[in-house]
Amino acid sequence: MKPQIAKLGYVALESSDIEKSVTFFQDVIGLELTEKVQDTYYFRAWGDFQHHTLSISPGEMGKVTYIALRAKSSEDLYLFKEQLETKGYSIEHVAAGTTPGIGEAFQFVAPSGHRLELYYDVEKGEVDDHRRSVLKNQTYKSWAKGASPRRLDHVNIHTCAPGNSAFDFFVEELGFRINECIETVEGKLLAGWMSVTPLVHDVALVAHDSLETKARFHHISYWLDSSGDLMRAADILKENGLQFIGPGKHSVSQAIYLYVIDPGSGCRVELFTGGYLIFEPDWETVVWRPEERAFGNTYWGDSITGNALIVPTIEA
Amino acid sequence: MKPQIAKLGYVALESSDIEKSVTFFQDVIGLELTEKVQDTYYFRAWGDFQHHTLSISPGEMGKVTYIALRAKSSEDLYLFKEQLETKGYSIEHVAAGTTPGIGEAFQFVAPSGHRLELYYDVEKGEVDDHRRSVLKNQTYKSWAKGASPRRLDHVNIHTCAPGNSAFDFFVEELGFRINECIETVEGKLLAGWMSVTPLVHDVALVAHDSLETKARFHHISYWLDSSGDLMRAADILKENGLQFIGPGKHSVSQAIYLYVIDPGSGCRVELFTGGYLIFEPDWETVVWRPEERAFGNTYWGDSITGNALIVPTIEA
Amino acid sequence: MKPQIAKLGYVALESSDIEKSVTFFQDVIGLELTEKVQDTYYFRAWGDFQHHTLSISPGEMGKVTYIALRAKSSEDLYLFKEQLETKGYSIEHVAAGTTPGIGEAFQFVAPSGHRLELYYDVEKGEVDDHRRSVLKNQTYKSWAKGASPRRLDHVNIHTCAPGNSAFDFFVEELGFRINECIETVEGKLLAGWMSVTPLVHDVALVAHDSLETKARFHHISYWLDSSGDLMRAADILKENGLQFIGPGKHSVSQAIYLYVIDPGSGCRVELFTGGYLIFEPDWETVVWRPEERAFGNTYWGDSITGNALIVPTIEA
Amino acid sequence: MKPQIAKLGYVALESSDIEKSVTFFQDVIGLELTEKVQDTYYFRAWGDFQHHTLSISPGEMGKVTYIALRAKSSEDLYLFKEQLETKGYSIEHVAAGTTPGIGEAFQFVAPSGHRLELYYDVEKGEVDDHRRSVLKNQTYKSWAKGASPRRLDHVNIHTCAPGNSAFDFFVEELGFRINECIETVEGKLLAGWMSVTPLVHDVALVAHDSLETKARFHHISYWLDSSGDLMRAADILKENGLQFIGPGKHSVSQAIYLYVIDPGSGCRVELFTGGYLIFEPDWETVVWRPEERAFGNTYWGDSITGNALIVPTIEA
Repeated sequence: MKPQIAKLGYVALESSDIEKSVTFFQDVIGLELTEKVQDTYYFRAWGDFQHHTLSISPGEMGKVTYIALRAKSSEDLYLFKEQLETKGYSIEHVAAGTTPGIGEAFQFVAPSGHRLELYYDVEKGEVDDHRRSVLKNQTYKSWAKGASPRRLDHVNIHTCAPGNSAFDFFVEELGFRINECIETVEGKLLAGWMSVTPLVHDVALVAHDSLETKARFHHISYWLDSSGDLMRAADILKENGLQFIGPGKHSVSQAIYLYVIDPGSGCRVELFTGGYLIFEPDWETVVWRPEERAFGNTYWGDSITGNALIVPTIEA
Repeated sequence: MKPQIAKLGYVALESSDIEKSVTFFQDVIGLELTEKVQDTYYFRAWGDFQHHTLSISPGEMGKVTYIALRAKSSEDLYLFKEQLETKGYSIEHVAAGTTPGIGEAFQFVAPSGHRLELYYDVEKGEVDDHRRSVLKNQTYKSWAKGASPRRLDHVNIHTCAPGNSAFDFFVEELGFRINECIETVEGKLLAGWMSVTPLVHDVALVAHDSLETKARFHHISYWLDSSGDLMRAADILKENGLQFIGPGKHSVSQAIYLYVIDPGSGCRVELFTGGYLIFEPDWETVVWRPEERAFGNTYWGDSITGNALIVPTIEA
Repeated sequence: MKPQIAKLGYVALESSDIEKSVTFFQDVIGLELTEKVQDTYYFRAWGDFQHHTLSISPGEMGKVTYIALRAKSSEDLYLFKEQLETKGYSIEHVAAGTTPGIGEAFQFVAPSGHRLELYYDVEKGEVDDHRRSVLKNQTYKSWAKGASPRRLDHVNIHTCAPGNSAFDFFVEELGFRINECIETVEGKLLAGWMSVTPLVHDVALVAHDSLETKARFHHISYWLDSSGDLMRAADILKENGLQFIGPGKHSVSQAIYLYVIDPGSGCRVELFTGGYLIFEPDWETVVWRPEERAFGNTYWGDSITGNALIVPTIEA
Repeated sequence: MKPQIAKLGYVALESSDIEKSVTFFQDVIGLELTEKVQDTYYFRAWGDFQHHTLSISPGEMGKVTYIALRAKSSEDLYLFKEQLETKGYSIEHVAAGTTPGIGEAFQFVAPSGHRLELYYDVEKGEVDDHRRSVLKNQTYKSWAKGASPRRLDHVNIHTCAPGNSAFDFFVEELGFRINECIETVEGKLLAGWMSVTPLVHDVALVAHDSLETKARFHHISYWLDSSGDLMRAADILKENGLQFIGPGKHSVSQAIYLYVIDPGSGCRVELFTGGYLIFEPDWETVVWRPEERAFGNTYWGDSITGNALIVPTIEA
């Protein structure tokens, strides 16, 4: 039996201007600060259930140091470790509590060049009385400030790994399903929207022939409940002096989006709503051809295409 | 390894006034007719992927004859059959194609008194050119008519089975997780919101001391993308001369709703949006006490409580 | 030529618990404080253009002391004064600047028993740099906090003046048009939605056979841009521990609403969206009969009917 | 006393492919057909109150033949006629009923080069029982088909008349107020958003140094209640194979928009929501400088700038 991943867990971000980043994520995007430990800020959306879905540490440059995925069980976690070691991956052990709220974890560099972390145990994180929701199934009061997204949705990462090796790793070793893809007729994957959940993507992976560094981070995406909330977010971004791309709707995933850059780290954030869920166990990958890429990217509205500066690197 | 269910599949409804029911579901709710075979109409929402999520046949009275669940694989299907037979359930075999679009299936009566069906194989169902979406990941054009929900969400069923036996069956035999519940301090479950997916519920089960018949059907729920779409649906229902309950928001599930009765069958339909998804593998059931039931039912708005006529029976 | 009124101006409210009222209007409703002068707080919505649309002063009890209407011009203001004096109304002169931001004004008691003020000159009021919108046609940044309505919409007032005299005054002396009304077949007006603008009502007047005091204030209404924003407001009210009525839709005015009580003054606030505008110069009053009143009040949703506590008095 | 205009009335359009135009306006935009008289189709939105707000006749080319404005009263209508004749305008008399639903009218060519019509008397137009709203203050059931806007909002027209003469005419002869404008420091108006109502514009006028013909028509705009409805409209346009610009938000007027071309006539239609109302009688024109034009046009989103093909001519 293959081990399974439950969900995308969190993104570990470094910022060269942490004050700006904290203002951006806390006041403009409207994430909640679970806690600050030493120099690192741990954030989550009001509807996220684990300790954090984004950590921000000071760094020399904007950089995503790793992306963490939560295993389905403790057994799965150790099976992953064993399986990856067998395949020759160099596994770095991270002791429980090294990252606040996160148990024992294992880090490694995927063939895409991105450092990934697997973990299982979590703490929910304390919530101040005045920020706690009156609903016992919701972490914080919603709509406290900024755009106020509900939850982490997905990450989008770019690679220049050869062939389909970066995609194969996610599918074969981590158990992701490619729900939609851009693929040449020869079978070369140019982009894949992959998930372990009914979301169209927990991770989107985009292939390039070359990149400044092998692995790049394109965006972290937080989910809002409606397109009206996204229009409200657009107003909030403008009133805070921020430029952004969108609103627009992707054909792939059917989701409506805004893209805005954290002025501290250069990390792109997507605000995201709509889209569909996949409950079918025999889902056939929706294949878009390279000539359909523009339509796949942009069903309507302001397009991210051609604006795809990929700012923060991930160390390989 | 226990077999798994992938999703709620479809509801088989009988109506004593099929013409009224078809008008209601097709023109007012805005479902799409996949096909009519003999006297039975097969409907789905524009974003549903399998052949149908609702069938309506003529009958002497409004009645849900069974509720169908899709297994995760063909192997799971046969494992379920074997396991249920071992436990002494009487299994009725339904040959592939007996229900259009649905493969081989097995039916049985659950301890709740509801007839359930398990199946795996499906056909997607043909889509006329003029109704097909321009998006290759969407079945029909959206917004063609009526309220136009995106997809089937869940069913809510009522039982007077003793103790927690009806709940236990869903959890132990079918692999559901109880995400939220109303439970006495003595551990008697009064209601459970249960799922095999990240939805808060694929099936909600409500316990009664007594009912006219052991098993009742409370509502079938279809999902819309936003609360604005729900307000639009409210206008559409009124312009069609229909009374309804809502809009309101449940505390349980955090979802926003309208409830309206099909004038043909008496079957209640919920139009539904918002809510949260559960990706945590160690989710702890959110427990509401009987004295919190009113708040659990209605966070704000027009309340279903006290209007809970449970119209169509399910044969036991 | 008859003098004309341009718009509803502002409401002067007294609160017996000013701290609670300020928290409610500023943090929960999300109005902006233009300034505090002595003990009085001057509030407006982010899209209001004049100095304030609500003032709150400390008082022994919750009370609306007067409702101010802006004349179309300085000439109109003096014509109104002259005309009212001729008719025998006792006019109280209020020197310019007595109310911050408001020029010379005239107050009197209308036949409905409500104290009204007419004024023309206004100051726009200073806006702090950090709260000023980046848009030069918008006063404050939107969405800074709370429900964040765009602008003052209307007031709803109750009277037990005999016959139609209270309505006649608004129509004949102040130039209002009755756009919709509830009227007996004998021509007795029970309620009138009246305006000097294309809004369905700047002032709604409801007649009673008897009231604790001759004149009562039912609610002040602020406008939001969409029904989605109203659902968001509902969440915010609940997270702040407030009960409310709604969401629902009026047949009269076609507007969608929430009603919530300021816990400081007991004054009811309506959050309001949707509805229609009347540009027709020959609009015929839409007449609802007493037996249509329930439908007129509530097209769908949670109803204000039967919850109509009319809290703050207006001095007669 | 100067005569007054009450509102924008209707647009008289000619189409070289009337079948396409009718399909577009009726099925995609979702206007209601009041009636067809000879070869001309008379359309209005479900919330429009007069006989029609758009007429479409067959023609050799896409062309707006005239734009009709409704006077505030019959007296105003004749005063306008007199006043314009005195100023030397050539007035063409149109007998009552020549245009179905429209009384006696007067047409003339404005200094902008656009043919305008003034009228006062209207008929409301019959409504079929099955299309009539259950609300007595609403003309048709809403949401019957297509994008389903509520009402006519404004027109946008272009001119190459010298200096500010075209603007002056609207202000001085017709009583419009310029609410927002783009103006050089020397006082040359490049664009003006003008109204006789609290809308920011009933008519927008844009100046060019040269045009193919002196007078051009840029778009007719219909109003929807929310940004969510606009996103729904975007989906509907795409599913009908139509390209469009938007969604985006104008700084001028603060309104959110989509722009789509009628494939029959080439006439551009704007779907429009949000924005603000002006009730202040002493409104000071909001002045944007030429260097602010791009920001004035596009606060955020997909921009109309540079896509401003001005398709249908108006005969001069």
